[in-house]
Amino acid sequence: MKVKPIEFKNDVLYLIDQRLIPYKEEYVEVRTLKECYESINLMVTRGAPIIGFTTIYGMALWAKNNPDYNLKSLEDAVSYIKKARPTAVNLAYEADRCFEILKNTQDKSQAYSTLVSFGNEEIKKLENDNTQMAKFALEDLKKRLGKDRFRLLTHCNTRRLACGCIGTALGVVSYLHTNNHVEHVYADETRPYLQGSRLTAFELSKENIPHEIVVEGAASYLMRNKLVDAIFVGADRIVKNGDTANKIGTSNLAIIADYYKVPFYVVAPTSSFDLSLSSGSDIEIELRSEEEIKQYRGLEIAPKKSRALNPSFDVTDSHLITGIICEKKLITDHASQGVSW
Amino acid sequence: MKVKPIEFKNDVLYLIDQRLIPYKEEYVEVRTLKECYESINLMVTRGAPIIGFTTIYGMALWAKNNPDYNLKSLEDAVSYIKKARPTAVNLAYEADRCFEILKNTQDKSQAYSTLVSFGNEEIKKLENDNTQMAKFALEDLKKRLGKDRFRLLTHCNTRRLACGCIGTALGVVSYLHTNNHVEHVYADETRPYLQGSRLTAFELSKENIPHEIVVEGAASYLMRNKLVDAIFVGADRIVKNGDTANKIGTSNLAIIADYYKVPFYVVAPTSSFDLSLSSGSDIEIELRSEEEIKQYRGLEIAPKKSRALNPSFDVTDSHLITGIICEKKLITDHASQGVSW
Repeated sequence: MKVKPIEFKNDVLYLIDQRLIPYKEEYVEVRTLKECYESINLMVTRGAPIIGFTTIYGMALWAKNNPDYNLKSLEDAVSYIKKARPTAVNLAYEADRCFEILKNTQDKSQAYSTLVSFGNEEIKKLENDNTQMAKFALEDLKKRLGKDRFRLLTHCNTRRLACGCIGTALGVVSYLHTNNHVEHVYADETRPYLQGSRLTAFELSKENIPHEIVVEGAASYLMRNKLVDAIFVGADRIVKNGDTANKIGTSNLAIIADYYKVPFYVVAPTSSFDLSLSSGSDIEIELRSEEEIKQYRGLEIAPKKSRALNPSFDVTDSHLITGIICEKKLITDHASQGVSW
Repeated sequence: MKVKPIEFKNDVLYLIDQRLIPYKEEYVEVRTLKECYESINLMVTRGAPIIGFTTIYGMALWAKNNPDYNLKSLEDAVSYIKKARPTAVNLAYEADRCFEILKNTQDKSQAYSTLVSFGNEEIKKLENDNTQMAKFALEDLKKRLGKDRFRLLTHCNTRRLACGCIGTALGVVSYLHTNNHVEHVYADETRPYLQGSRLTAFELSKENIPHEIVVEGAASYLMRNKLVDAIFVGADRIVKNGDTANKIGTSNLAIIADYYKVPFYVVAPTSSFDLSLSSGSDIEIELRSEEEIKQYRGLEIAPKKSRALNPSFDVTDSHLITGIICEKKLITDHASQGVSW
């Protein structure tokens, strides 16, 4: 059974409460823009694409609850929802798109259904794009490895909980499983936030995909013992020369995969490509709170006096990446030609 | 201030309770062989060398409390203490050495003081050996890097808490710090058992060595950003061709260090060398409990249905090791010549 992290039906937006996973599986019901704001702000839902979809449905509910809206009240609503998580690019992007649609809607009685349809279509579109990526991945795996069942390793969480639909790297894994191409999956626990053991393992469990959680230190052990056929990771940003920023630990994996000659794939929509930057050295890396490393759910792990350094992302050198898979194509000449499609 | 994990004075053996670190710093007082057994069995103390020293002092206390011992009661005592942790090689080794000493002691009134002196001398001997290793390390670092202050990365815990005295890899770090050669230390948290964030960070804090805890996923980030001058790790077993088994995650580090051309040192006494095995492939790797990955202090981290794979050690390829440092010499021709001194 697949996780449904977001669903809109009977005038209600249902969001799985990601704060409780894997301990509980509960849904928050959203009926107003204020409830939508709170769901994003309090991290009931997280992950760039799903925050975008949540925003669209939130604005749809606003239009339903405010049938007599005018330009001023619309501007206030958009400005309000954007503050839910100020740095979330998809939130502002989708809020602005909703603003344009509502501003230009002649028959306001149609505004609500227009936005609901828009949200449904956007999810459908991403679902199609993700599926296309998974097909590119399968085709290349078969050709490269000369077999059709694979043992895969993945990092962080890149499936429904983050994306709302199939997802990128873990979407590939799920697609391959559905089509009987998965022998086993290793899920990096992904310290410090444990997206792997909390979220990825949860999604793999729900779909009955055979898997084991491993600490990140086990990567060389796994590959030395020939337990991994290929590695799939997502991307936060891919720049012109193919260098890729992703969750901390990704670049470790790429170097180790290169040492053991294990194919290493980055899976990301073209919207994650930033061709304005020429190389990975131009990417700024977010440093996050020390407490993510020094505590676990309020329990102290480390001495109070000790400091921790917590970079949230790292940069993987372009030439270490076997293929970059986007919805347009599989890119393999990125290290020599730069990224293009 | 240095941690004193083991101290014998006024007829009492004081052991720091490692189960409480870093939350509390408390000592257990041992006055009988039974209390010695319990301290080892319940993991008040852990780490191969320190278990050996604890055994010697425990047998000394037994001799004090049993001045009229005979061969039968001595055999019973040795057999009893060996069961405290059946797989601990140093325990059985030191128990057997105590047996020989006590069996051959003519004047039983001297037995107690003989064993206490023996314990003190063994610690002193290891302390000298560890210091010699640190000197080899400093000499090579200066020559190789052409400077005399270093930013170091280490993995797991290899200092007083494990060794009772200076220690191996972290012993090098401490020696360098004492002699003003340390700019900064990065301590891998060392999942799943967190020896880095719990024990290593605790010892670095006590000695005021500037340090930050990092997740193991940050290794490439640190080296890509030129924040690490050299890496020091310990070893559980070094075989004939120089392949080295150590805490899971060590081999990841060696591969990444090789990619970024950062010197990678293994520090271990010759007692950790096993020349009966020809290569790392012959080393059996212990698989430990899934719960170490799936729980933290009783809290569930991962879904109940998910499995975890928990290899406790990995094997680092000989040619990735810049130097193997033992008490006899710095070995650098291990990859071509095999290990010898």
